[in-house]
Amino acid sequence: MHSQTLILIQCQDAVGLVASIAQIIAKHQLNIVTMREFVDEENKKFFLRVVCSGIPASPAALQQDLHADLPANALVTINPDRQKKLVVLVTKEHHCLADILVRHFFETLNADVKAVVGNYDTLKSFTEKFDIPYYVVSHENKSKEQFETELAEIIEPFNPDYIVLAKFMRILSPSFVSRFENKLINIHHSFLPAFIGANPYRQAYKRGVKIIGATAHFVTNDLDEGPIIVQRTKSINHSYDVPNLVTAGKEIEKAVLSHAIQLLMEDRVMRQGNKTIVFE
Amino acid sequence: MHSQTLILIQCQDAVGLVASIAQIIAKHQLNIVTMREFVDEENKKFFLRVVCSGIPASPAALQQDLHADLPANALVTINPDRQKKLVVLVTKEHHCLADILVRHFFETLNADVKAVVGNYDTLKSFTEKFDIPYYVVSHENKSKEQFETELAEIIEPFNPDYIVLAKFMRILSPSFVSRFENKLINIHHSFLPAFIGANPYRQAYKRGVKIIGATAHFVTNDLDEGPIIVQRTKSINHSYDVPNLVTAGKEIEKAVLSHAIQLLMEDRVMRQGNKTIVFE
Amino acid sequence: MHSQTLILIQCQDAVGLVASIAQIIAKHQLNIVTMREFVDEENKKFFLRVVCSGIPASPAALQQDLHADLPANALVTINPDRQKKLVVLVTKEHHCLADILVRHFFETLNADVKAVVGNYDTLKSFTEKFDIPYYVVSHENKSKEQFETELAEIIEPFNPDYIVLAKFMRILSPSFVSRFENKLINIHHSFLPAFIGANPYRQAYKRGVKIIGATAHFVTNDLDEGPIIVQRTKSINHSYDVPNLVTAGKEIEKAVLSHAIQLLMEDRVMRQGNKTIVFE
Amino acid sequence: MHSQTLILIQCQDAVGLVASIAQIIAKHQLNIVTMREFVDEENKKFFLRVVCSGIPASPAALQQDLHADLPANALVTINPDRQKKLVVLVTKEHHCLADILVRHFFETLNADVKAVVGNYDTLKSFTEKFDIPYYVVSHENKSKEQFETELAEIIEPFNPDYIVLAKFMRILSPSFVSRFENKLINIHHSFLPAFIGANPYRQAYKRGVKIIGATAHFVTNDLDEGPIIVQRTKSINHSYDVPNLVTAGKEIEKAVLSHAIQLLMEDRVMRQGNKTIVFE
Repeated sequence: MHSQTLILIQCQDAVGLVASIAQIIAKHQLNIVTMREFVDEENKKFFLRVVCSGIPASPAALQQDLHADLPANALVTINPDRQKKLVVLVTKEHHCLADILVRHFFETLNADVKAVVGNYDTLKSFTEKFDIPYYVVSHENKSKEQFETELAEIIEPFNPDYIVLAKFMRILSPSFVSRFENKLINIHHSFLPAFIGANPYRQAYKRGVKIIGATAHFVTNDLDEGPIIVQRTKSINHSYDVPNLVTAGKEIEKAVLSHAIQLLMEDRVMRQGNKTIVFE
Repeated sequence: MHSQTLILIQCQDAVGLVASIAQIIAKHQLNIVTMREFVDEENKKFFLRVVCSGIPASPAALQQDLHADLPANALVTINPDRQKKLVVLVTKEHHCLADILVRHFFETLNADVKAVVGNYDTLKSFTEKFDIPYYVVSHENKSKEQFETELAEIIEPFNPDYIVLAKFMRILSPSFVSRFENKLINIHHSFLPAFIGANPYRQAYKRGVKIIGATAHFVTNDLDEGPIIVQRTKSINHSYDVPNLVTAGKEIEKAVLSHAIQLLMEDRVMRQGNKTIVFE
Repeated sequence: MHSQTLILIQCQDAVGLVASIAQIIAKHQLNIVTMREFVDEENKKFFLRVVCSGIPASPAALQQDLHADLPANALVTINPDRQKKLVVLVTKEHHCLADILVRHFFETLNADVKAVVGNYDTLKSFTEKFDIPYYVVSHENKSKEQFETELAEIIEPFNPDYIVLAKFMRILSPSFVSRFENKLINIHHSFLPAFIGANPYRQAYKRGVKIIGATAHFVTNDLDEGPIIVQRTKSINHSYDVPNLVTAGKEIEKAVLSHAIQLLMEDRVMRQGNKTIVFE
Repeated sequence: MHSQTLILIQCQDAVGLVASIAQIIAKHQLNIVTMREFVDEENKKFFLRVVCSGIPASPAALQQDLHADLPANALVTINPDRQKKLVVLVTKEHHCLADILVRHFFETLNADVKAVVGNYDTLKSFTEKFDIPYYVVSHENKSKEQFETELAEIIEPFNPDYIVLAKFMRILSPSFVSRFENKLINIHHSFLPAFIGANPYRQAYKRGVKIIGATAHFVTNDLDEGPIIVQRTKSINHSYDVPNLVTAGKEIEKAVLSHAIQLLMEDRVMRQGNKTIVFE
């Protein structure tokens, strides 16, 4: 994994993009190890993720050469820091947080968890076992604005790449969302777009579905409507009551969020409008 | 499979039901091979499916003994005809129909397909290869009432146990639905309740979901809202355009409908309000 | 979940077993909530798991009544302690252990983890975060007999219901296995019976399989041949090298072992020769 | 799909391959739509599948330019005929054949099924419904050599791209296999390498596995050991007897073989030693 360069490109589609990019990469003495591209033909957008062996003598020159050749307004990212910084937001449920902290402790998360922030102290002692600072920001007896200001003041100094809502049960305001645009990742306890809104497991029970699921997605101002990163489902049957559904759901939630975080840590996810391109 | 008796019971829950039913079964010289029961605790309903070895000397006496012991209004079915009669309704898509006809031809469907009715003649020659009568009832240039009257007149003489909507793309009126209550089975090309309504694959594409699915359900007057029998999903990614989704979806539709029919043919499905109990 | 009685029965098959058992249960004022039975027709064996509401006035009398009515040598277990005692054996890999300890900490494991024993101290500090005693029993510089004697001396005082080999990488001798008969549960890092033996992921890589899996099973003296409890698989492709396979495999191993433990904690697993009956 | 050029390359790995290939493609006025590559690092092999929009003015010149730039002995295939020719070999089981013939009839197979050859006439009338010639070549009362000579004499005039063994239950000799090298595709009724050999479903039953599967693979002289193309599994439980396993297995066999054929028809499968690279 050492001595590799990762290049991410997102731009208007055009003829010959792969050839010209590949030439520039070769000119900078890098050898392509894997290349994944996608053209969104409806929107004429081009997405590329290239892993090269070798390190460019001058990343700035490589960046410049790429921009010179690509359509205007291309997004070019070279060698993003592989160890992303994370802040995790929680309420009372532990399953997603525990998965993150265990992976972090054993260094399989490929991320740096800077802090956990909860609107209750329920998960404080667990978090601190792993020497991660835990901040309590209660939402009680204060306005949403005040609550979110306090949250933001704790989060911002860590300058996180991503803020993971690991079963954080407060709805965030548009102003908070825009303050951390493209950084907020949520795990939704349903297979979106089914069962949007409150109590999805009760909704699923009442509807008598035979499958439940979970969805990891970017948070936008349209509640439950952000770009989907990962979804997974599990078959159930008539014998599942609501608590059984919740228990089964937690396993999926944990697995889905964990998978989404892994993809984000490896820079495999690109956003295009309300959708994602995921190069797995 | 021979010399077996199937008993289906659906009634108010009460103390000691299994014991008293098992005693009555033993009294009639039948031996329980498998017994599956479920209690819907919210609605205090009891559901039972028992397979016994042996044939009762008098099914009527067995029925009488069971009713004498069970709560009022119990539904008791003894030894339902295992070879159900089916009528299949289609429009232009072949995948679900072909699956049914091939299984019927090779005698693995465990059903008697009496007729196929289409609102186009697209699938006529294919159906007739298998010596199944095909009726064309066009919906064009006539009222829905007239169309449905013609449909019903073809269907009713076959006295089908189930009418399978195998990608039948006309919405049926409440009066048609109530005429064939509990007999109409539909395959919906989405993972309900996501993407209710028209063009679910286009909706799925626009929403950028990472999983698609299909749902087999009983038809009720609430469109897309009937009791769900079987659901299945498949993972997809950003590279699926709408035609790819449709192609992938057809495989799931076929498998889901096929599975639902198999369950119905084996009397493994019971209805309770808007839900199903499925003893697999 | 309170005020319930669990009854497990395993015996020779005979006519009328369900009826006579149900009668005895009713006589003791218990009401059947769920009943699952299975008849192994090849071996003429009968397996039953019944959950009743209520507690028998005299469990001993219930037991006596059941034995009086059942074939000789029937195994009858009434109301087994629901909180089983576990000892976990590990080597260096953390993923299965961490899953067990987190579930134990948050009281979702439904078990009492008494101790972790490792042949290295790698997982000591992690285990102790959860206030579970960790014992190091090195296998180095001693005979297998001596090693296993030391292991057994640590394990036996805990009188565990199950000893979970959570990636314990030492092969156990027949004498150790028979000392803890029916109590040893292993997670095998392959989809048995494929890739028996050493380095299953390397074997899988060389064979070019498109699916990998894991198997939780009882340990017997036939290495990798004990009764299988749970298996699960995951699709892979040509791009997985051995380390990728190991990483993907760990997720399955963890999930499979976790599922098997849950089934055992709920007394849903019965052994019959080299197979298991699992009432899920 | 029209006006596209497919390019397949398989050669020794070398620095700058993607760049130089992309340049040559651009020089011939083709635009890359999707490019998938894989480097087998153990064996230093490079695999590429490129779909371009446009048709080269001179495919021969494109081929020449590519060979001039690539390592010696590169395999370069430009625009392989998309409609492959198939011959299907069967014995008595219909499920895989029926799936192939239905897809062929409705033109979703993307292949030209030239003939079906059976060692019994069981499937003759079914095949002929679809206007596909059916040849009976009995293996009875003749040597394997004689049987295979007759088979080959029927197959060869069709010059098939692939010969699909759709539940063909005769073991083929090395001389037959080498005569149709790289063209023989088999569906094996087990999750290889588990249960190699006869009666895999009985073996699976006796072993008490909780999952069964099927494998589509190229046929080589090592029985059951050829390069695997597709595998799939399904969860089962203790209640499956051998006939249930066979029934469940047929569904998987059909789906797996169907998927493998689709991949082959779209030139998504490359062989490397005993493994395959599948660009899905």
